[in-house]
Amino acid sequence: MALLQQLAVTSRLAHFVATARWEDIPAAVRHQAKRSFMNLFAVALAGCRTSPVEIALASLGEFSGGRQAAVIGRNERIDALSAAFLNAASANVHDFCDTHLATVIHPTAPVAPALLALSELRRIGGSELLLAFILGNEVQARIALAISPQHYNKGWHITSTCGVFGAAVAAGKAIGLNEPALVSALGTASTQSSGLCECLGMAAKSVSVGNAARNGLWSALLAERGFEGPAEPLAGRQGFYHALGETPDLPRVTDGLGESWEIMATSYKPYPCGFVIHPVLDCVLDWRRDHPNAEPARIVVRGNPLLAHRTDRPEIATGRESQVSVQHAVAAALVFAQAGLDQFTDACVNDPRVVALRRKVEVARDESFSTIAAAVEITTADGAVHRLAQAAARGSDVNPLSDRDLEQKLRSSAAAWDAGHGVQPLIDAVWALDQRDDVSGLAALAVPR
Amino acid sequence: MALLQQLAVTSRLAHFVATARWEDIPAAVRHQAKRSFMNLFAVALAGCRTSPVEIALASLGEFSGGRQAAVIGRNERIDALSAAFLNAASANVHDFCDTHLATVIHPTAPVAPALLALSELRRIGGSELLLAFILGNEVQARIALAISPQHYNKGWHITSTCGVFGAAVAAGKAIGLNEPALVSALGTASTQSSGLCECLGMAAKSVSVGNAARNGLWSALLAERGFEGPAEPLAGRQGFYHALGETPDLPRVTDGLGESWEIMATSYKPYPCGFVIHPVLDCVLDWRRDHPNAEPARIVVRGNPLLAHRTDRPEIATGRESQVSVQHAVAAALVFAQAGLDQFTDACVNDPRVVALRRKVEVARDESFSTIAAAVEITTADGAVHRLAQAAARGSDVNPLSDRDLEQKLRSSAAAWDAGHGVQPLIDAVWALDQRDDVSGLAALAVPR
Repeated sequence: MALLQQLAVTSRLAHFVATARWEDIPAAVRHQAKRSFMNLFAVALAGCRTSPVEIALASLGEFSGGRQAAVIGRNERIDALSAAFLNAASANVHDFCDTHLATVIHPTAPVAPALLALSELRRIGGSELLLAFILGNEVQARIALAISPQHYNKGWHITSTCGVFGAAVAAGKAIGLNEPALVSALGTASTQSSGLCECLGMAAKSVSVGNAARNGLWSALLAERGFEGPAEPLAGRQGFYHALGETPDLPRVTDGLGESWEIMATSYKPYPCGFVIHPVLDCVLDWRRDHPNAEPARIVVRGNPLLAHRTDRPEIATGRESQVSVQHAVAAALVFAQAGLDQFTDACVNDPRVVALRRKVEVARDESFSTIAAAVEITTADGAVHRLAQAAARGSDVNPLSDRDLEQKLRSSAAAWDAGHGVQPLIDAVWALDQRDDVSGLAALAVPR
Repeated sequence: MALLQQLAVTSRLAHFVATARWEDIPAAVRHQAKRSFMNLFAVALAGCRTSPVEIALASLGEFSGGRQAAVIGRNERIDALSAAFLNAASANVHDFCDTHLATVIHPTAPVAPALLALSELRRIGGSELLLAFILGNEVQARIALAISPQHYNKGWHITSTCGVFGAAVAAGKAIGLNEPALVSALGTASTQSSGLCECLGMAAKSVSVGNAARNGLWSALLAERGFEGPAEPLAGRQGFYHALGETPDLPRVTDGLGESWEIMATSYKPYPCGFVIHPVLDCVLDWRRDHPNAEPARIVVRGNPLLAHRTDRPEIATGRESQVSVQHAVAAALVFAQAGLDQFTDACVNDPRVVALRRKVEVARDESFSTIAAAVEITTADGAVHRLAQAAARGSDVNPLSDRDLEQKLRSSAAAWDAGHGVQPLIDAVWALDQRDDVSGLAALAVPR
């Protein structure tokens, strides 16, 4: 039975995807999918003018044919595979996108861009788009849950390594692949699964995230043409789990498929930095609001060991690195009483006030904290000690951003580099997605006129 | 010191590559590089009309811009990134390409196609091409040696996972990247390193090999534009070796750089199937030549445990799977007294005489055999027992194919699907490569007029 289950992991996922219907998706799940698209446009608009995206766009433009698909926030159009790459890269470049906390996947960046690009090649309706998105999200989360947290701890950038499966499944569903073709798409995706955490904070990170979207989409399109992969790419003897997964908990992949939905565990970020830093920022920003003129002399942040493992970086040089430095986030929030995009730039990293304050931040590990909780102890110059705590970070699944918060996040991102970019039509279109017969014009609404 | 060495692995490779000069390359190494190009054209001409290549070409054609670069053996031209992908896929599709036995890398498939495509974007001289090729070959072999054989045993398709570094280094050298840019290229390559052995024998395998060439080339082009990666993508805390390498033997990467050349350990195959099967085929073909009418009743092949591990596949359905089935190779060689491309087709797999004979082949593991040695015991219908042995397979580094053998391999591959394709100008150009000022026309010589 265990062997049978093992051999059937990929085909069971394919069966689930091939037979899933829009009518079976609960209303709350449908709405959450729209929230994910809202957030996607917000973060891609925030990231679409960064250096990694500019360089990748200029380079891909040398090789690309046609102007098939929109690039979010930009007037250039490009081939659909490259558009999937670029929009995923834009979405993830700032570490501002949504997070599936149990796996630390940023689930929308690889999946939604693959679908947006595809929708400019093929006619896809709004409910088809959302269904395909929900299924891609579900499959990548389940593949990842079976090997979390050891997969990430091994150095794998899980958004990239598992995102390619999500993009393949979503694109495959949207073009109507049958079960065997979905297995082939997952197989071709499996052999393109890559991405290393060593590249976090570097331009190179954007390549693995972009590839997850591009290569997942391409895997589905190849499968549609009859391109074949192995029967069991996930649990096979020399497959994905054997190479990248140590000891997978295979029942987590398939148990309860269609009964629970991982998208409901998605967190949307109020701050453009690593999510583990968020509860710390909640504490610091609240305190700063109440003590605008106090002078911090020593700050000790306490959190789950993951906080220190991923973000204990006192010495940084660039805005991108600052996204994964708790020292920087705390210092910048104290100096500016904000934690927006401007606080994670090269300029802010080199601001002498921020540099000085970063050195006063210490990080303590405490197993008793969840990853969405933190405590901060601020000792001010006058010797007073202020103790702050956040049990559930703003934006986490148990303390979520509201729909209005997400709209505002999108508006702020667009306004940051183009005050004239009216995004209300885009916001309206996202909330009404399931009413559209054809979503091919959606991404173009995120392009300034 | 150990830590220092660890931290410097990537930059030491980059320094070696940036400073290496054509004048420092021994004549035997230069000549071996030409032999690798000769073999590359032979195997790509053999593979360029197979289904995986046809499908990938048709799909990429939808997205590709321009007709920048030649596709070996085909009249279509395509963008340079896609040409690198397709020529690498063509070269490796049949399992007919060259092999670095210590790592089981097929070293030329990812590297040479990246350079051929690049040479149609930028002016590259013949000696520059060969130098860049030799360096890419060297770096990927050394990166792989440090984690062999456990990396492959974990399920990684080492040609793909390490080939992306070889392609990045070769392309980076050819466009004159300096040391920091080479480190960035290796970083962007590291986060695209992928490919699973589960896909061997399937179309999906061609995707990881093609990506190694494409993504390695792209990594170098991105680095040229200032796209940055981590300082130590190989040995860093969350880098390539931590994720894909268990316990790397780091001195193997850098010790003796520039003193020994791994390309000298390249084997070129006389038969289009897994190299571990080759000494078995040597025995069987010699015996069949001497006993054209004998009727085998039972065949026991004995070899290194790798022979059984990789090729003990009595039940197969396709020509591609047959490349890694020792049972099939033996049966087909006995039926046809040959082991060429025609013996590894779907038709041959389903030939009733071959099917019947496959069932009579048994595989024995023997630790005392090297991977290039084998013994075969054939019991004929009359009860006679014939014992055969091969100590060093034809084509192995100690029993190499001659230059003439390689030319003949190229001629046969071209003639197999286009009897009118005159390849003498191509053969002449390869032997005279170091005399050319501009190699941009080289791949076009492998396109039928």
